[in-house]
Amino acid sequence: MTDIDSSSIEGLLREDLRGGTPYGAPQFDVPVRLNTNESSYPVPPTVVAEITAAVGEVAAGLNRYPDREFSDLRTALAAYLSSSGTSVDPAQVWAGNGSNEVLQHVVLAFGGPGRTALGFTPAYSMHPIISSTVGTTWVDGLRGQGGAPFDLTVESAVAQVRAHDPHLVFLCSPNNPTGTALGLDVVEAVYAAAERPVVVVDEAYEEFARPGTPSALTLLEGRPRLVVTRTMSKAFAFAGGRLGYLAADPALVDALRLVRLPYHLSAPTQAIALAALRHAPELLGSVEAIKEQRDRMVTGLADLGLAPVPSDANFVLFGGLADAAATWRALLDRGVLVRDVGIPHYLRVTAGTPDETGAFLAAMAQIARPEQDRSAP
Amino acid sequence: MTDIDSSSIEGLLREDLRGGTPYGAPQFDVPVRLNTNESSYPVPPTVVAEITAAVGEVAAGLNRYPDREFSDLRTALAAYLSSSGTSVDPAQVWAGNGSNEVLQHVVLAFGGPGRTALGFTPAYSMHPIISSTVGTTWVDGLRGQGGAPFDLTVESAVAQVRAHDPHLVFLCSPNNPTGTALGLDVVEAVYAAAERPVVVVDEAYEEFARPGTPSALTLLEGRPRLVVTRTMSKAFAFAGGRLGYLAADPALVDALRLVRLPYHLSAPTQAIALAALRHAPELLGSVEAIKEQRDRMVTGLADLGLAPVPSDANFVLFGGLADAAATWRALLDRGVLVRDVGIPHYLRVTAGTPDETGAFLAAMAQIARPEQDRSAP
Repeated sequence: MTDIDSSSIEGLLREDLRGGTPYGAPQFDVPVRLNTNESSYPVPPTVVAEITAAVGEVAAGLNRYPDREFSDLRTALAAYLSSSGTSVDPAQVWAGNGSNEVLQHVVLAFGGPGRTALGFTPAYSMHPIISSTVGTTWVDGLRGQGGAPFDLTVESAVAQVRAHDPHLVFLCSPNNPTGTALGLDVVEAVYAAAERPVVVVDEAYEEFARPGTPSALTLLEGRPRLVVTRTMSKAFAFAGGRLGYLAADPALVDALRLVRLPYHLSAPTQAIALAALRHAPELLGSVEAIKEQRDRMVTGLADLGLAPVPSDANFVLFGGLADAAATWRALLDRGVLVRDVGIPHYLRVTAGTPDETGAFLAAMAQIARPEQDRSAP
Repeated sequence: MTDIDSSSIEGLLREDLRGGTPYGAPQFDVPVRLNTNESSYPVPPTVVAEITAAVGEVAAGLNRYPDREFSDLRTALAAYLSSSGTSVDPAQVWAGNGSNEVLQHVVLAFGGPGRTALGFTPAYSMHPIISSTVGTTWVDGLRGQGGAPFDLTVESAVAQVRAHDPHLVFLCSPNNPTGTALGLDVVEAVYAAAERPVVVVDEAYEEFARPGTPSALTLLEGRPRLVVTRTMSKAFAFAGGRLGYLAADPALVDALRLVRLPYHLSAPTQAIALAALRHAPELLGSVEAIKEQRDRMVTGLADLGLAPVPSDANFVLFGGLADAAATWRALLDRGVLVRDVGIPHYLRVTAGTPDETGAFLAAMAQIARPEQDRSAP
């Protein structure tokens, strides 16, 4: 045998992957988990019953491959998107096992080896990972060129698109991890700045946006290179169901068939998502409560002298921390898990239930004002 | 606006994808569907009940992300693999939404842009598609260098590996679409022929192999570059559940975390597969019946003067057809859907129930011996 030692697997790995670490937030079993922007609200019992029944209906037929075109699911997703006022046709809809997969399909079709993707950092950290994993060159664009630390202005975005001439541009609105929605003027300007790039607007948190924040869905008409991605993980409280989707021009959607793995959506995944969409109002019922807690977090953190970033999402990025890693640890010591997203002096916290928000703010008060805490009766 | 016309999406597509057509067997609603190597046997009612109950248990918690490491599922898959006699540890197991996804993970980690994958055609047609979709250069190796049309001999395989010096080698045993299992001597020789390639043995149909056909699992020990892929789609009669998996060295499995999309297996997918694995004997209960029908097809086709290839799978490739496309159409006209896999003078047919096999053989008799048919009373 010419065996190599198992420690040499690293040497067989693609050169650009060597020494890497897998994506993933640290997972701890603590009382208050506010680190991955999940919903703290369980799926309601009526929806649990519907989901279970839906799987019961398809289970006997699992010997057959699922509908490769997931036609019913696309119709239901189109109807959901259309319910916000912008008519979306099923032929404009595509779905995958989480929005990561639909993003990967877009990158595989329009990016890939020898091509370039531009995003504006900090944004969703999977955008560069998905791009580079399939060989696309990632360009880290800049935010904060217009004053506020994480702002992306029309002028700055357009200048960067023109300078880098990418094949793909990633926008993220509301932006993760900063929380603020992007003005549609930026989306329009980025789209118009060049003729080549497919422009992806990641709207994973769109349902949490403050009033008067229109979706990029309203821009799809007449923009065949525009893609708007969504997910059921956040507002639908459905992270465990893994269902992400997008809306775009039918021709662009059609091209994604060339790169998807056939039968990528299982029959239960399709049936479960359909059941959930039939109960969209119940599942989305916690959105307003979560927005209240988010706003309470913003106010509470500002009251502590910290610097929360305005949020249109189900989380709050807050700055003003002398040592973010130390604060992250101090919160964990108090049973509250938040996310250190790698921005110095900032942490990100998910808006939870009223009790969880209370626990987080109480812990932050102890950490931020230890003298007051010690003088308390 | 600088909009381009929607017909120009093709022009934005990755150059090597332009003009392509998506993978996928033609789907028709006919009485006898023997085209995609599904099981014709529905999931038994007891297993349906267990699957449904398993989803009922996880549905309330779908607001949370699933176990990113799918630990329970890996343990159950390892136990299933170990039950055939070769001990497999959970750390050696990886899973995805169908074996296509675990194959994609292997190619992303060890192939990719600037790297080469070698397979021996005809084999599973997704191997080249998965490879080239993520930028890996595909090399179409040859079969039939040793006499029989689809044989792969040790000498031929080793010579081709040395000639092409690939980063990945795909073997397929039992081979799809030809049906015959590969001797382990070929696997051993391919592995030993070069120090670089990760060697993938696709054993999607392994459970249908004729007696005395050992699995490449028996070769894993001491071969850190060897990967054996499996699926629940075939013998488990679980194509709609989309659960593929592999066994390999723990270090190789660990590397796949670098390229998988986080949380790629939904909580229901994990729960459903676990329930199915708890009932492996029931689900695998139809394997012997299917093998009987396969052997009946081989005999019946030979009796018609056709040339079936010896099969270790749940399908039969048969040659001796003057015009395969015309035969495919003539079968469809008689309500029997089989697969034209693109090999001149051959078609592939899945072994179905006794009735389906009877319908297929009767239709083939009509087509192959039209004179006799017309003279029948």
